[in-house]
Amino acid sequence: MPDKILFLVADDVEDLELFYPYYRLKEAGFVPVVASADGGTLTGKHGYRLSADTTFADVKPEEYAALVLPGGKSPERVRLDQDALKITRHFVDRGAPVAAICHGPQILISAGRTKGRKMTSWNGIRDDLAASGAIYEDGEAVTDGNMVTSRRPGDLPAFMGAFLKLLSAAAKRTAVPAR
Amino acid sequence: MPDKILFLVADDVEDLELFYPYYRLKEAGFVPVVASADGGTLTGKHGYRLSADTTFADVKPEEYAALVLPGGKSPERVRLDQDALKITRHFVDRGAPVAAICHGPQILISAGRTKGRKMTSWNGIRDDLAASGAIYEDGEAVTDGNMVTSRRPGDLPAFMGAFLKLLSAAAKRTAVPAR
Repeated sequence: MPDKILFLVADDVEDLELFYPYYRLKEAGFVPVVASADGGTLTGKHGYRLSADTTFADVKPEEYAALVLPGGKSPERVRLDQDALKITRHFVDRGAPVAAICHGPQILISAGRTKGRKMTSWNGIRDDLAASGAIYEDGEAVTDGNMVTSRRPGDLPAFMGAFLKLLSAAAKRTAVPAR
Repeated sequence: MPDKILFLVADDVEDLELFYPYYRLKEAGFVPVVASADGGTLTGKHGYRLSADTTFADVKPEEYAALVLPGGKSPERVRLDQDALKITRHFVDRGAPVAAICHGPQILISAGRTKGRKMTSWNGIRDDLAASGAIYEDGEAVTDGNMVTSRRPGDLPAFMGAFLKLLSAAAKRTAVPAR
């Protein structure tokens, strides 16, 4: 069965930062699953709509291979939800691949999982990341262990290239060896 | 030098059908180049903006490995431009990979390059494709020779998967054999 990848999303998400990873993961054979607070229809900053597949409260994070946190104004809503923060900690703490772009790292700040990590973000929240203990770098895709962060929609090609490498490496680690 | 891939675009392009292929080709190491009638700033149906790199009149199609025709209301404008139609015929007639999605096939109709080809499109222009001599099929990515067509944004993963296969096969045909 193909691996499921979880997205944590609220309204006013940066549409391309939701749909590029969503379609790209489908293209690579994964099953993207979108969770929101109420499981209803989400509307992006640019008006694209998508029905959530599940709610933050119903997500069992151990069923997912990795986590994606798109940007826009969505992360300022998602970070207020305690279930979303618990889910986020689960992925970081078990060392599963985590990808956050633009304002997505705001969720990692609220989850308390940025200290000592090399990270980037939208430049407007750069100082918040640094204040939370992250080591800020200005790069199109900054990888630290199993976490990759990017700055803006134009970084999406590098962001997804780096994230797919993390997914491929994680799949090799958990594969059952052939006998 | 990486291969350049040409996009023919006008205002009110379906944003995801421009940006998903654009970023996806960058991720795969190609150089996407956007041409428009006047070479100015393009605005998508959902408000995303992108500066064109060149004009239809200035394009030398022989410098490009392949052609992408995104949908939305853009193709109804592009198909009125005689330079854009000449460019389109150049790619089809030399057998270079051509990818058209949603309303993108309208440009192929006006260029007179649909007769006898298995194709799909947005369902609202299905009858126009059939009337122009195409063999209409309802599929997420319909490949006929070096042409791939798709119906809508949700087909983008299959569309780009199929187009990248065509690009890879074309690169092998034109590669200089190792000695």
